[in-house]
Amino acid sequence: MTKKNLLYAQSGGVTPVINATACGLIETARQNRDRLGKVYAGKDGIIGILKEELIDTSKERKADIAGLRHTPGGAFGSCRFKLKGIEENHAEYERLIDVFKAHNIGYFFYNGGGDSSDTAHKVSQIGKKMGFPVQCIGVPKTIDNDLPVTDNCPGFGSVAKYVAVSTIEASLDVESMASSSTKVFILEVMGRHAGWIAAAAGLAAREDGDPPHVILFPEVPFKQREFLKKVKHAVENYGFCTIVVSEGVRNTRGKFLADAGTRDAFGHAQLGGAAPVVAGIVREKLGYKYHWAVSDYLQRSARHIGSKTDVEQAYAVGSAAVEMALEGKSGVMPVIKRLSNKPYKWEIGETTLGRVANVEKMLPKNYISVDGFGITAAARRYLGPLIHGEDYPPFDPDGLPKYVKLKKILVPKKLPDFDL
Amino acid sequence: MTKKNLLYAQSGGVTPVINATACGLIETARQNRDRLGKVYAGKDGIIGILKEELIDTSKERKADIAGLRHTPGGAFGSCRFKLKGIEENHAEYERLIDVFKAHNIGYFFYNGGGDSSDTAHKVSQIGKKMGFPVQCIGVPKTIDNDLPVTDNCPGFGSVAKYVAVSTIEASLDVESMASSSTKVFILEVMGRHAGWIAAAAGLAAREDGDPPHVILFPEVPFKQREFLKKVKHAVENYGFCTIVVSEGVRNTRGKFLADAGTRDAFGHAQLGGAAPVVAGIVREKLGYKYHWAVSDYLQRSARHIGSKTDVEQAYAVGSAAVEMALEGKSGVMPVIKRLSNKPYKWEIGETTLGRVANVEKMLPKNYISVDGFGITAAARRYLGPLIHGEDYPPFDPDGLPKYVKLKKILVPKKLPDFDL
Repeated sequence: MTKKNLLYAQSGGVTPVINATACGLIETARQNRDRLGKVYAGKDGIIGILKEELIDTSKERKADIAGLRHTPGGAFGSCRFKLKGIEENHAEYERLIDVFKAHNIGYFFYNGGGDSSDTAHKVSQIGKKMGFPVQCIGVPKTIDNDLPVTDNCPGFGSVAKYVAVSTIEASLDVESMASSSTKVFILEVMGRHAGWIAAAAGLAAREDGDPPHVILFPEVPFKQREFLKKVKHAVENYGFCTIVVSEGVRNTRGKFLADAGTRDAFGHAQLGGAAPVVAGIVREKLGYKYHWAVSDYLQRSARHIGSKTDVEQAYAVGSAAVEMALEGKSGVMPVIKRLSNKPYKWEIGETTLGRVANVEKMLPKNYISVDGFGITAAARRYLGPLIHGEDYPPFDPDGLPKYVKLKKILVPKKLPDFDL
Repeated sequence: MTKKNLLYAQSGGVTPVINATACGLIETARQNRDRLGKVYAGKDGIIGILKEELIDTSKERKADIAGLRHTPGGAFGSCRFKLKGIEENHAEYERLIDVFKAHNIGYFFYNGGGDSSDTAHKVSQIGKKMGFPVQCIGVPKTIDNDLPVTDNCPGFGSVAKYVAVSTIEASLDVESMASSSTKVFILEVMGRHAGWIAAAAGLAAREDGDPPHVILFPEVPFKQREFLKKVKHAVENYGFCTIVVSEGVRNTRGKFLADAGTRDAFGHAQLGGAAPVVAGIVREKLGYKYHWAVSDYLQRSARHIGSKTDVEQAYAVGSAAVEMALEGKSGVMPVIKRLSNKPYKWEIGETTLGRVANVEKMLPKNYISVDGFGITAAARRYLGPLIHGEDYPPFDPDGLPKYVKLKKILVPKKLPDFDL
């Protein structure tokens, strides 16, 4: 039996630990050289596969592959590109199979969120139908933490840790100055549809009265009067108020606050920035001095404050995906199963791609406090363990992290060009 | 000889390491109990002294004082409050001396920037004049790095490290997605007058072509055409462009870009946010997909990624201030003297408050590259060592940093109230 090659691709928005998954996958494949061929990676995700731009990871140094464990971003490149339905766009699926055939691919690993599971699912079906069956395995990843079945998603824990730590730190800053200066601090975090990241900021509050005093979730329509009451209460009782606002928070008419009519110098709608809008409301109605921050990509790439739990889980799903391939499985995805909360224990489980594709796991209602501005004990029990432990990257003597840059040498092309 | 008490106050915007200075000062004073009395600290800075709200640090646990070394914010509270000239406001100076007398204060330590040096200087003069001489010692601190005489200012190195690390990390994120998604990332950093922090982001670029590709300094008037050319060049040559913009960047008419006509939902000028303005220009003129972040207080409080060099220097100036007091000095300030660059060596020196008061050290012209969008080798030589080494705070098992909260027990008041 000739050994088949593996093909790995990163998909969608990257995370601080998606490369840790790549590391787990490649290292595990290398440990099984007797049964597995080379690991190729799509350059810039599935677009690279369609263009037959395959990175040969066997050309990378062992130390660099190991270094992926602590390097943020997507080392092979990623993309936002959703394959259409098989009926609408048969050509793209056929092309994938052609590339698989040309490069003796036996295993396809798609590392992404819900869309990617859907794609991997379809690819596994079309391969069979076209007489070139490839074992397709989804590998979970998303800072949005919105995949079903899996207890949590690799990537989320590190973002959660960054956001909780930053909330504590910035609040200590505001608190120091509040008696005579800034009284309100607003931190905007990601989360267009689900408030998982905003909820994680709630972990910063370990005692009653601790910041954040107000969390604005995308799940809770923004009610200005209640919000202002809450802010005023915090300032009057604690001297200051820390607000964490999800980028996806909407007003009662369902419109994003971030798009609520702000105009730039040219009179065009200013996109993005729920924090400055909230700041404007605080100034207008309460007159408090404020500061605001928008963490944007910083939160999604801050590997320097990665969660050890998250890094271990990210590595484990990559490794498990290869084990599943070795067991002959297809159309499956490794998931994280929580065994206990105290002490926190988890293991890798398995689900089918069909169960994951196109389902969004929203923040449960009982994770949001009754007044809509905080998290509950249940949320705390769920979120808490995901930020456990620190996993610092190594640093160079110049004081900067030692993040790896891969050589990304492409496998020679064998097929004609393909128009995307 | 009865022992005199020490009075310490934090002043102005806090830093990730101002408490490390407090730690050095209090620990050194405690080591000299035979000659020194208690260390009191003004609650919320000099305002607390005027109000006779003095925190008795002898009531704090030894472990908590030690924990100040790794706790961001201002543990005793700070304020933005500049005493007026002695002629205009004699009453406030008299009040200070009254408080000093009432609490047997022999040493006053003012931990702040240029304004604070000026205040400490004036207090030392008035004390003598009023027949109650107090040894007044300034202790340097400012993330703005704009104090003269001292080679650098405690606080700046940690902010510099945060900004450089964040620039690297966010750039890895953008680079991963740039082929099909976001091509331009804009990070706004502090610096209203001087571009020290923006310059520090330049340390992220270790090789030609590395991000940040464009730095916008407050020292260089924003020229839109040259800026756009530079952004286009980066996108066309590296696939993406990382821009670091100082909050204080101005247009050629001297107006802050952050105030360049943005209007909120109510039609009021939207304050703050140079990054979204720059993003708007990129979208308008080049059409690239972009993301922007405003780090604001996050950069100023991110003790979790503190510079070891900075922490050691912050501690050292606090300790040295007490040594100077013990040597009978007044009207002085410990400064950092650079002895060599390779290897980086420094020691504590001394200057007089008169030389520091009201002088701003601007970014030297030869630190900014000829095109105005980057830093030079000279800047790199100066800035590099300031971010050397990591100094992580301890973390609790819950995954959050173990920052200390002081008891802040006040010394009983002895004087009538004073109207501020």
